[in-house]
Amino acid sequence: MTNDARNQRPILDEMNETVHFPSSNKIHVKGSIHPDVSVPMRQIDLSPTQTAARTEIPNPPVVVYDTSGPYTDPNYAVNVREGLPALRKPWIVAREDVETVSGREVLPEDNGGPDESETLRHPGLDRKPLRAKPDCCVTQMHYARKGIITPEMEFIAIRENQKREETLEAMAQADVPMRPQHPGEDWGAAIPPVVTPEFVRDEVARGRAIIPSNINHPELEPMAIGRNFLVKINSNIGNSATTSSIEEEVEKMMWSVLWGADTVMDLSTGKNIHSTREWILRNSPVPIGTVPIYQALEKVDGKPEDLTWEIFRDTLIEQAEQGVDYFTIHAGVLLRYVPMTANRMTGIVSRGGSIMAKWCLAHHSENFLYTHWRDICEICAAYDISFSIGDGLRPGSIADANDEAQFAELQTQGELTQIAWEYDVQVMNEGPGHVPMHMIKENMEKQLEWCGEAPFYTLGPLTTDIAPGYDHLTSAIGAAMIGWYGTAMLCYVTPKEHLGLPDKEDVKEGVIAYKIAAHAADLAKGHPGAQIRDDALSKARFEFRWQDQFNLSLDPTTAIAYHDETLPSDAAKVAHFCSMCGPHFCSMKITQDVRDYAAQLGLQEEEALTKGMREMSDRFHEEGGELYR
Amino acid sequence: MTNDARNQRPILDEMNETVHFPSSNKIHVKGSIHPDVSVPMRQIDLSPTQTAARTEIPNPPVVVYDTSGPYTDPNYAVNVREGLPALRKPWIVAREDVETVSGREVLPEDNGGPDESETLRHPGLDRKPLRAKPDCCVTQMHYARKGIITPEMEFIAIRENQKREETLEAMAQADVPMRPQHPGEDWGAAIPPVVTPEFVRDEVARGRAIIPSNINHPELEPMAIGRNFLVKINSNIGNSATTSSIEEEVEKMMWSVLWGADTVMDLSTGKNIHSTREWILRNSPVPIGTVPIYQALEKVDGKPEDLTWEIFRDTLIEQAEQGVDYFTIHAGVLLRYVPMTANRMTGIVSRGGSIMAKWCLAHHSENFLYTHWRDICEICAAYDISFSIGDGLRPGSIADANDEAQFAELQTQGELTQIAWEYDVQVMNEGPGHVPMHMIKENMEKQLEWCGEAPFYTLGPLTTDIAPGYDHLTSAIGAAMIGWYGTAMLCYVTPKEHLGLPDKEDVKEGVIAYKIAAHAADLAKGHPGAQIRDDALSKARFEFRWQDQFNLSLDPTTAIAYHDETLPSDAAKVAHFCSMCGPHFCSMKITQDVRDYAAQLGLQEEEALTKGMREMSDRFHEEGGELYR
Repeated sequence: MTNDARNQRPILDEMNETVHFPSSNKIHVKGSIHPDVSVPMRQIDLSPTQTAARTEIPNPPVVVYDTSGPYTDPNYAVNVREGLPALRKPWIVAREDVETVSGREVLPEDNGGPDESETLRHPGLDRKPLRAKPDCCVTQMHYARKGIITPEMEFIAIRENQKREETLEAMAQADVPMRPQHPGEDWGAAIPPVVTPEFVRDEVARGRAIIPSNINHPELEPMAIGRNFLVKINSNIGNSATTSSIEEEVEKMMWSVLWGADTVMDLSTGKNIHSTREWILRNSPVPIGTVPIYQALEKVDGKPEDLTWEIFRDTLIEQAEQGVDYFTIHAGVLLRYVPMTANRMTGIVSRGGSIMAKWCLAHHSENFLYTHWRDICEICAAYDISFSIGDGLRPGSIADANDEAQFAELQTQGELTQIAWEYDVQVMNEGPGHVPMHMIKENMEKQLEWCGEAPFYTLGPLTTDIAPGYDHLTSAIGAAMIGWYGTAMLCYVTPKEHLGLPDKEDVKEGVIAYKIAAHAADLAKGHPGAQIRDDALSKARFEFRWQDQFNLSLDPTTAIAYHDETLPSDAAKVAHFCSMCGPHFCSMKITQDVRDYAAQLGLQEEEALTKGMREMSDRFHEEGGELYR
Repeated sequence: MTNDARNQRPILDEMNETVHFPSSNKIHVKGSIHPDVSVPMRQIDLSPTQTAARTEIPNPPVVVYDTSGPYTDPNYAVNVREGLPALRKPWIVAREDVETVSGREVLPEDNGGPDESETLRHPGLDRKPLRAKPDCCVTQMHYARKGIITPEMEFIAIRENQKREETLEAMAQADVPMRPQHPGEDWGAAIPPVVTPEFVRDEVARGRAIIPSNINHPELEPMAIGRNFLVKINSNIGNSATTSSIEEEVEKMMWSVLWGADTVMDLSTGKNIHSTREWILRNSPVPIGTVPIYQALEKVDGKPEDLTWEIFRDTLIEQAEQGVDYFTIHAGVLLRYVPMTANRMTGIVSRGGSIMAKWCLAHHSENFLYTHWRDICEICAAYDISFSIGDGLRPGSIADANDEAQFAELQTQGELTQIAWEYDVQVMNEGPGHVPMHMIKENMEKQLEWCGEAPFYTLGPLTTDIAPGYDHLTSAIGAAMIGWYGTAMLCYVTPKEHLGLPDKEDVKEGVIAYKIAAHAADLAKGHPGAQIRDDALSKARFEFRWQDQFNLSLDPTTAIAYHDETLPSDAAKVAHFCSMCGPHFCSMKITQDVRDYAAQLGLQEEEALTKGMREMSDRFHEEGGELYR
C-alpha cells in the first residue's frame, strides 16, 4: 500500500481537539516534596441522593486514575505537530547527570528506504537527545538505591492514591452509607494502606516496581508497574507491511490512553518505523515500549540470519535517543532451548523469539542478545530504558502451556534480571500467552521465585484456543486471574488477535476488556480504595441515578447507547424503573418499598423488621413450631 | 407498544429455513440399549496437512456438542407453526406411568387480558397434556433410583462423549501428532473417562445431575446438568411490558441454541406470557425454564401482596401442562432473612426475591413458597419438572457479596433440596450474582456442602460493578472460575445487563461469552477430550489452514469477517502468513523454517537440534565456559 494519499494527514489535522468524559473534571494534585509536581486525575461529579423524605444527601465526587494526558484537559491546546509539553525536562536536567549529545543521524534505512522518510518526519522535535554523562547512571532505580525520592516517585505516589483518603473522608462527612471494603487475598503482596513517595522509592530500589521513563521522553506522566501498585494495562499498536499509516497509529495511541491504557507498545514493522515512532513518542503521555529486533530485522531485509550485534546496537541507540521507555528484548531464547520447541503444537509464536531462534540455528551460536546482555544494560542505563525481558518461547496454544521450553526461558529471564540490576537498570519480565486456568498460578509463582519479584507482564493469558474473534475475552479471563495472583501489568489482546491488525474500535475493545480484568484483580487483591468506584456505581444504580451510573462506568458512551436502545427518552434516565422489567415490576423498586414500609412504622428499618419477625416467630413457636401443618 | 403490526408475524414466516455451519455435517449416533435413541452431533471436516515433502496427512474430523436441534439438519423442514417433532413421546408413553388429562383451560388472564390471546395462540399443538397416573412418579430421578436406564439417560451418555474415543483413535491412525491433554484440577469432582448410561443413571439417582425434561415437552433433546458432565450454559430471553414481541422471542430462542445455549429461560413479563411460552416450547430443542411467580404477579396486576398460593399453584399447573422443564422458585427467601438485606448496598436485586420479600412483609407471614414446598414438589413430580431453587437474596453488587442474607438463603436451599429429593424431584440451586474473584470459591464450597452436591447454577458472577455495557465480560471471568470450581451450569449475562433487554445480537454475544467460559472451565477441570477442539484449531492455525481455523471456531462468521477486514482476498486464506506481520515476518513461518532447517540435515528434528547444540556446547566448554569474554 502506498502512503501517498495518507501523506495529506487529514486525521492528524482533525486531532487538535480535546475530548471530555461526561460530568468529569480534570483536577491536579500538587506534590509536597517537589512543589512543581502536579498530578492529573479525573473527578466524576455525582448528583445527590433523593431520600424518601424528599431531602437530598450529596454524593461526593469519585476520583479515578487518568491515563489520558492533556487530551482531556480543556485548558490545553492540542497540536500533534508540536507534541506534548516536556513535563519532566526540568526534573531530568536538575539531577545534573545528563548531557546533550549530537545524536545519531537518522538514516533512510531507519524508515525502510529513502523515499518517504523526510516528508513523514515529525516536525515538532528540535531538541538534541540527552544521554547520561560518562560514569553517570540516570535510572530511577539508581536514584532510588541512593535514597533519592525523585519528582517521578512523588508523582506516582500521589497518582496511585487517587485521593482516596479525601473521598472516604468526604463520604463520611456527607453521611453516605459506607462499609469496609472486602479484605481481599493478595497472595503475599505488600500493598500499603497509603502509597508514600518513600514506598515508591523503596519498591523501585529493590526491583519490585519500575518507572519506565526514558530521559528522552520527557512528555510522559510518570507511572509505576509493580505488584504492590494498581494493576496496569498495555495496548499494542503499530503498522505492518500490509496495512495502516502513521496517522492511524497516532490515533490508536490517543484512543488507547483515552480509554485507560497505562503504557503503549509500538510494534510497527514494515516501512516508516522510525517516523511512526517519533510521532507516537512526541504525542504520548504514557510510556512507550518497542521490540527493537523488529526494526533491526527490517534493516536486514527480513533475513534473521543477517542480523548482527552492530546493527542491533545501532537500533537500540536510535530508539534510545528518540525516547523509547522500555525495550522488549528476547535475550532468554537460548540455543539449547530451541530443540525443546520442535514437538510443540504451535512451535515458537513470538516474533522476536522465532527471529532469535532462527539466528541461533543459522549461526550455531548462542543468542547475541544473551551474550551482549551487559552491553545492552550499559546502553539502557545511560537513558533509563527499562527492560521488558521477552518471552520468546511463550506457549502459543493450550497444548504448549507451561512446558519445558517456556520455563527454561523464564529461568534465564531471572538470570538476566539479576545482571540488569547490577547496572541499576529497571526490569520487568514478560509472560504467556495461552494457558488453561488451572495452570496460570504456576506461572506467577515461578516468576516470583526465579525473577526476584521483578514485575511480571503477561499477554493475557488466553484460557482457550477455540474462539478467534473473541480473544479479548478468552484472555481477559486469564488476565484477571494472573493479575489477582500478582502480575503487575496485563498486555491487552483485541478481538482481532490471530486474525488481523486491530483498528481503532478493536483497540478500545481491548483496552476496556483489560481495564475490567485489571480492576477485577485490584478488587480481589483488596487494593485499598479499589471498591470506591464499584460502590458508587452500585449505589447510583440502586437509587436510579441513571446518569451517575453511566458517568461512573468505564465506557459511558456505550452504557448510554445501550440504555437508549430500549428507552431512549430523557424521562427514562430519571425513571425509577428500567427497560428490563417495566414500571411495575422492578426488584429495586420493590426493595425500596420494603424499606419505605419499615420507615412507615416509625422505627429504624432493621429494628422494625426484626420486631415484625420476632412477633411472627413468637406466634410460630406458640403454635408448635411445625412448618407443614 | 401495540402488537398489531407484529401480529403479521413476518419473522416467523422467514424462519422456515435451516442454517448451516461451514464444513459441518449433522451426524447421528445410535443407542445400543435403546436402538431408537439417535443423538445428533456436529462434525467439522478438516483439510489435510501439507508436509514439507508435498505429501498430505489427513486430519480427522472434529465432533462438537450440538445444541441447535433440527434447525441445522438439512433434511428437516422447519415449520414453526407446527413445532418440532415429539422426539421423546414414545419413550414417555412406553414407561406407562402417564395418563392424558383434559388439562386446565387456558384463560384470558394467562395472557394478561382477553384481547389478543386467541390470535396469538400457537396453532400447532393439538395434543392433550400428560400427567403422572395417580401414585406414579415420572421423574428421571425416580427411574434412576429404581435402577432404570431411560432412553434419555443413554442419549445423554452418547452426547456427552462427543465421539471422542473415535476421534482420538482416528487421529492415532492418521498419524496426527498427539499428546496427552493437561490433567486438570477438578476440585474433587468425579468425572469418568467415558460417560456410560449407567453413570448418568447413578449421577441422577444421587442428585448430582439433573435431566430437565417435562413429559409435556417431548420436543427436547435430552441433556444433563451436573458437575461431572460438560459445563452447560443458559440463555435468558423474554419480553417485558415495555418491549418486544413473540416473534422476536422465538427468534432469540433459535439464535440461542444455534450458538450453543444448553437451556433457555423464558423470563417474559407483561402481556401474552402464555402464548409466548407456547411458541417457544413447541419450537425448542432444549429445556425451557421459567420463573412462575412472574406470571402469577401479572395475574394480580403487579401487586405482590395480592399473591396467593392458589393463584401460584394454578400457574404452576398451567406451565406444567405446557411443558416447562424447570421452575425457578424463590422458596428460600424467608421472612427472617429479609431484615438482613436492609443495610445492603443494593438491597434485593432478584425480581422473584423482592416479590416474595414484599409479600412476606405485607402479610407478616412466612414465604408461602416455603410453607407449600411439599405441595410444589408433588406437582413437579407429576410432570418431571426440575427445580432451580432461586437465589432471591443474591448480591447485586460487589459490596454485598457473600453476606449473611445470601448464605442464609443458601442454607435454606439445601434444606429444600433434601425435601425435594424425598419426592424424587430433580433439583439444582441458583447462585450469584456479583462477587469479586477471591470470594467466588467460597460460594461453590458452601453450596456443595449445604446442598448435598446438587448441581449449582450461577448468574456469572460479575467480578466488578464498573462496566455496564460489558457485563458479559465482567461476568464471563467469574463464570469461567466458578465453572472450574464445580458449577454445572452458567447463566449468561449479555452486554445489555443493567441497561436494557437483550436483542438478537446481544443474545449471541452472551452465548459466545459463556461458551468460552464453560469451555475454559472444562479445560481447567481436565474434562476428558475437552482439549481436542483447541488442539485441532491450534494445529490448523500453525499450519496456516485458515479455513479450518475459522470452521473450528465458536463463531466462524465473525472469525472470517475479522480476517477479511485486513486481507479480504481468497488467496489470503491459503497464504502462509497473516495480516499482523506480513509475508516476510511471521513467527509461525520462521518456526517452520526452523523445522525445515533441521529436516534438511537429514536427521530427525530434535536429534538434529540436540546434535547441533551438543557441538556448540562442547566448543563452549572447551573455550572455558565464559559467557562474557
